[in-house]
Amino acid sequence: MTSLHVHDFTSILHVNQPKTSSTVDVISTRIPIRPYRPITKHLSMRCSRVVNHIDNSLKPSSSSSFFNTTFQIVPLKIGIIGFGNFGQFLAKAFKQQGHDVLATSRSDYSEYCQKHDIGFFRHIDDLCEAQPDIVLLCSSILSTENVVREIPFHKLKSDTIFADALSVKQFPRDLFLEVLPPEFGILCTHPMFGPDSGKDGWDGLRFVYNEVRIAENNIQREKCAQFLSIFENEGCQMIQMSCEEHDRYAAGSQFVTHTVGRILSHLELESTPINTKGYESLLQLTENTVSDSFDLYYGLFVYNVNATEQIENLGRAFDTVKQKLFGRLHEVLNKQMTERNTGVDKANLPAYFLPREK
Amino acid sequence: MTSLHVHDFTSILHVNQPKTSSTVDVISTRIPIRPYRPITKHLSMRCSRVVNHIDNSLKPSSSSSFFNTTFQIVPLKIGIIGFGNFGQFLAKAFKQQGHDVLATSRSDYSEYCQKHDIGFFRHIDDLCEAQPDIVLLCSSILSTENVVREIPFHKLKSDTIFADALSVKQFPRDLFLEVLPPEFGILCTHPMFGPDSGKDGWDGLRFVYNEVRIAENNIQREKCAQFLSIFENEGCQMIQMSCEEHDRYAAGSQFVTHTVGRILSHLELESTPINTKGYESLLQLTENTVSDSFDLYYGLFVYNVNATEQIENLGRAFDTVKQKLFGRLHEVLNKQMTERNTGVDKANLPAYFLPREK
Repeated sequence: MTSLHVHDFTSILHVNQPKTSSTVDVISTRIPIRPYRPITKHLSMRCSRVVNHIDNSLKPSSSSSFFNTTFQIVPLKIGIIGFGNFGQFLAKAFKQQGHDVLATSRSDYSEYCQKHDIGFFRHIDDLCEAQPDIVLLCSSILSTENVVREIPFHKLKSDTIFADALSVKQFPRDLFLEVLPPEFGILCTHPMFGPDSGKDGWDGLRFVYNEVRIAENNIQREKCAQFLSIFENEGCQMIQMSCEEHDRYAAGSQFVTHTVGRILSHLELESTPINTKGYESLLQLTENTVSDSFDLYYGLFVYNVNATEQIENLGRAFDTVKQKLFGRLHEVLNKQMTERNTGVDKANLPAYFLPREK
Repeated sequence: MTSLHVHDFTSILHVNQPKTSSTVDVISTRIPIRPYRPITKHLSMRCSRVVNHIDNSLKPSSSSSFFNTTFQIVPLKIGIIGFGNFGQFLAKAFKQQGHDVLATSRSDYSEYCQKHDIGFFRHIDDLCEAQPDIVLLCSSILSTENVVREIPFHKLKSDTIFADALSVKQFPRDLFLEVLPPEFGILCTHPMFGPDSGKDGWDGLRFVYNEVRIAENNIQREKCAQFLSIFENEGCQMIQMSCEEHDRYAAGSQFVTHTVGRILSHLELESTPINTKGYESLLQLTENTVSDSFDLYYGLFVYNVNATEQIENLGRAFDTVKQKLFGRLHEVLNKQMTERNTGVDKANLPAYFLPREK
């Protein structure tokens, strides 16, 4: 069996017609080859296994001539649980990269799935019986626990990988570690984009992930790498990070940002003829925040242990600013009163032109 | 005397060498002509008066040949009170457009002024004796009242115009109306830019103004128009607006923005590997806000009657968001407790995987 190098894997995925030319250039003109992006670990091993068809008639004379050979790489079978906007959005890329997608959801998406060549299952049991390589949770943060607890794990293969795409990471990690059979793989991910921000492609967008439990030297490791390579191939900035780190950063950034946006949305801010740039960025933030559901915001709050602390910090910061403003005001007024009461030259004291009440 | 049209005024300001050519093109190659921007009202009258030198030897044969003629438009004499960064920043443009600039300040800027051909006066009395056409307040909001009350108005010309450049507008308007002699002009302005945002020119930047008290059909009206034309010539977006309107808009936009930036500055936000765009705009806002002085922020608060209301609105909005978060949390927990206490099938109830305390 011809072995492949990682470098070549992403280029030749889904090549399944026999090629007769002996040059790489000719192959390039026949199939769209995505630019190579290095990261995927342990992929060479996977590749040497997944090659299940070799056109032996070509009889490659050396290892460097494997481009003369035709391979069929086994696509992943990805089962998506929760097939709303976000699940459909991810599924598009999975399909475009030649993987099989199965889906199940509370709502009926059978028509959509039929149109997009996706297997839709009304019941989670049926999806599990189809034995996906990857089970990807695309449910909301709030429904995830109930959804996961209802999965008939015994119907799945023993090397199944569970992945999630939630905006919090310690919660799904802990949930998976508690409820999944020990041989199942666990991959926690946070694609930091969605149907809006990723509508023109994912190039340069951040994809945070943590391989929580992936068996070494095993097909599970290869499938995990193959799954990650989907995002890599789309040009995502791949960020490997522990779930704790993610949640600490996210509470200090994403949750604070959502909270500020939510607060501002209650002020009913409007564009004025004298907008400053800073004000315009706040208007934009408010608009983006309210386009997300309150459930997402609530999920970020409840399922990120650092969020409560950030709410408290924000409250303290607001109090500090008010104290500084009112403290200074009292100081000035006290000084004025003292001057007025003790000053000899009262007639010449300025009237201190404080603004009138409305 | 040759009369000028408004259209021509900005182009030929400061032309004082006799020209012998008869074509506009040749003049264009000798002096930089700023692109014409229409607004300046009542300028034609002023122009017909301020022309104080005509090269009669050229004997223009028709009104269209006035470009053959040389004029010296009387530049404005602008006295700036408060010559910190902002005063110096504005003075540069005044000088570049050929006006005379005088300055006084608590600190000694005589060296700077000597270098930049600006008359510096240690005492306000001396600046007044030099009889500027425009007295422009560039003091801080907080010191403005004391500064204005110390001005010996009797040393100034009776048609003097007082202008300010504060970020609040009702306060200087009311102060001017109360303390200035009734024949003095009052022009309230808010250049919505500063040495940072205007360092590469003022093109497209907002200049808000309100001619609070300018005598009609009078040299005061012409001087006011000439002063406004400085900002117009620099490409500013000229926004005429009442002081009330300005302060209402500013409290709802600029003050809210400053407040959010001040609050965030106390959170000590840091850039993370997983910044979202929204978070990056908040980091930028925080950086811009803290580069302004607390005095400016305090001034916006104390001298804008709408600011207190906005602080209260912000507090209420924060409370609403917290109530929604915690209200929802209590609701969920109550539901769980009820289910646990009344449910028949207790054994099969999910464990509700709420995040662990840190």
